[in-house]
Amino acid sequence: MTRIFTSDFRDNCRKNRPDPFPVHTLDRVDRPTTLIRESEILQVDERAGGFYRAGKGEFGDHLKHEYKRFVAKQPLSGALCTMAGALGHMVDEPGKIEEAGKTPWGVSSWAPMPHMSETTAPGTDNPVANALHIKETAYFLRSDIVGICKLPPYAVFSHSKHNGQQIHLPHKYAIAIVIDQDWRTASAFSGNDWISNAMSFVSYSHSGFIACILADYIRRLGYPARAHHAMNYQVAVPPILLWAGIGEMSRMGDVVISPFLGPRFKAAIVTTDMPLSIDRPIDFGLQDFCSKCGKCAEHCPSQAISYGDKIMHNGYEKWENNVEKCTAMRVGNPNGSGCGTCIKVCPWNKPFTPFHRSINWTLRKFPATRRFGIWCDDLMGYHKPDDSKKWWLDLDLVNNAFVKPDKSGFSRKN
Amino acid sequence: MTRIFTSDFRDNCRKNRPDPFPVHTLDRVDRPTTLIRESEILQVDERAGGFYRAGKGEFGDHLKHEYKRFVAKQPLSGALCTMAGALGHMVDEPGKIEEAGKTPWGVSSWAPMPHMSETTAPGTDNPVANALHIKETAYFLRSDIVGICKLPPYAVFSHSKHNGQQIHLPHKYAIAIVIDQDWRTASAFSGNDWISNAMSFVSYSHSGFIACILADYIRRLGYPARAHHAMNYQVAVPPILLWAGIGEMSRMGDVVISPFLGPRFKAAIVTTDMPLSIDRPIDFGLQDFCSKCGKCAEHCPSQAISYGDKIMHNGYEKWENNVEKCTAMRVGNPNGSGCGTCIKVCPWNKPFTPFHRSINWTLRKFPATRRFGIWCDDLMGYHKPDDSKKWWLDLDLVNNAFVKPDKSGFSRKN
Repeated sequence: MTRIFTSDFRDNCRKNRPDPFPVHTLDRVDRPTTLIRESEILQVDERAGGFYRAGKGEFGDHLKHEYKRFVAKQPLSGALCTMAGALGHMVDEPGKIEEAGKTPWGVSSWAPMPHMSETTAPGTDNPVANALHIKETAYFLRSDIVGICKLPPYAVFSHSKHNGQQIHLPHKYAIAIVIDQDWRTASAFSGNDWISNAMSFVSYSHSGFIACILADYIRRLGYPARAHHAMNYQVAVPPILLWAGIGEMSRMGDVVISPFLGPRFKAAIVTTDMPLSIDRPIDFGLQDFCSKCGKCAEHCPSQAISYGDKIMHNGYEKWENNVEKCTAMRVGNPNGSGCGTCIKVCPWNKPFTPFHRSINWTLRKFPATRRFGIWCDDLMGYHKPDDSKKWWLDLDLVNNAFVKPDKSGFSRKN
Repeated sequence: MTRIFTSDFRDNCRKNRPDPFPVHTLDRVDRPTTLIRESEILQVDERAGGFYRAGKGEFGDHLKHEYKRFVAKQPLSGALCTMAGALGHMVDEPGKIEEAGKTPWGVSSWAPMPHMSETTAPGTDNPVANALHIKETAYFLRSDIVGICKLPPYAVFSHSKHNGQQIHLPHKYAIAIVIDQDWRTASAFSGNDWISNAMSFVSYSHSGFIACILADYIRRLGYPARAHHAMNYQVAVPPILLWAGIGEMSRMGDVVISPFLGPRFKAAIVTTDMPLSIDRPIDFGLQDFCSKCGKCAEHCPSQAISYGDKIMHNGYEKWENNVEKCTAMRVGNPNGSGCGTCIKVCPWNKPFTPFHRSINWTLRKFPATRRFGIWCDDLMGYHKPDDSKKWWLDLDLVNNAFVKPDKSGFSRKN
């Protein structure tokens, strides 16, 4: 215990390491804890995503209509999403940016011409030094957690949802930029009330902002680089998070959980050819933990999360989740903006206090303590909203004016 | 001591208050500790700024030439500045944005149309509740310190440097968004080497990013709001920081120092007509401290900072600083990108560790301890670069390619 407290304290003072979280204390493994059969994986078409299909009407006219407003109907998530969308033209050199990142929120902007160096910068030929430098830079840019891996070819989308064109992304490496969705708000919200989309987009917008700056910086050093962020991804994020050692796949399906943030984060990605040494995947016992827990399945308002065992799906051995039910809840939520109930109730969604860090360390190291930990988490009622911390405004946009909605969030109980 | 540790710890856990720093422990006063004679103050023309004059050649051809490259010559500050500039079209509704924020770095972008509410949102008519809500929102958006004041009419620039037109900004209130320049980097740099501009622009870009989102949010709530950030200010920031209780004016001249960050920060501003209760100025003894210290004057490479007493200048009783000498050093620095030597050597530039917080509290509360504190600060050598923490690349752009510069920073000694 002393060891971890000391090293955590060192990290918090950021004396010897740039990481705000003690990522160096995590157990590393050669392959992700999720079985991945590369040969069986088919590249995913971005248009297969639940939100895109909802917008096209595949889940009915109601969701097709709600899709246009489900983020903008709450003013804070609307403002955050507008900014995230505006970053769409900062992801690469103007010439290389696909037409448009046009979203239902009507975002359009134009990228400044980055100053390109004609040769690679001196002192950037050592992969180990480069990886450390890129992480130091990303932390300087206020990232919460950073990880690096080879870009798995199967993580690249086959086609863009913006123009239906085939995606060509030859980059060798992927840098994951993780941003917390804010513990204080996570402890206050019900999981599916009016702040849910804003929590997603505060992380989407900040991680995208950092990724665009980092990609521009790498291009100035003379290497191709592209930022990938919400509404402008050319890659599927989960496999990158697994290989970069950010977290493990969870019962929630495609949701990756970090030992320090739980599922309470979003990530942007920078892909590049700059030579980088890579991180190794982590194993903090989540596959065992999720098999014993199931709080997310129990509390999911749309019952989209599996209570059962893992299945093989497109080359991944993962817990199945019902994309249509999940999307319908997030897009169609009549009593809130979006839904993050699984994020709210997950026992790994905790603050980074000395107390919680010691519990965290114990759950990671001693499998036998997990059932008791889950029982205590239930007993402490961490899955319930803490109204004393609620700070946001419940607002719904009706006829171009904001009104007080009669309900704020709901659990399966009501 | 127990008291402050408890309250600091509470704040860090963010249980009862949103503020990451214990701003509620500061002594508040009715007026800024700097004598301000409102009647004597003439509105400042943005074109009177040192950088603008350097760009126009008022300080000679060499600085006129260097002005075009002094930020972009280092790749990280170049990338950060490009992003900060691109935010220039996100500060207000497109119709209200003055043509261009065109900078020497060729920034241009286009703002998305914010969704404007036709009526003010319900639950936004109580100034006290609004001020708390706006602060909670700004902290949710990852601000480091937030303060609110009435917008002093004399803080508004008379004319824009972008188009020379008169500025009309009738807003009643100003919200200050403060972002740290990163202690770890501040402890590593010499004060005037190649990371200096990047430290300024990591704070300029992040505070501007947050301010643009916050202004958009306030507009959606039905109130006019404009973000002001580096390269797109319509207001002079220092008087706003004084009235909003962010800090006190220092020996460095127009530089405001925070008790928690020292001079190691930049701020963006949101001006609005949303009814807001205001903060009161703070007094942590800086006027007395600066009169006893003078480390910034002693270490300033261009000797731009006064060793003497305050003078009256345009209605402010302040320490004089030589704008031309300061600008010449920052724009013309041949051994670095920019200069922040005064930020580096200021005894208030410290990390937020329990040890430094206790010293900080002692220096704030007991004037008699200050000379000893300054002597200890010298003894500990905090003004020296800590090479063990250096992480950035020293690079200079020559003939459109980055090269290793022969020198990295210099103090008055060499």
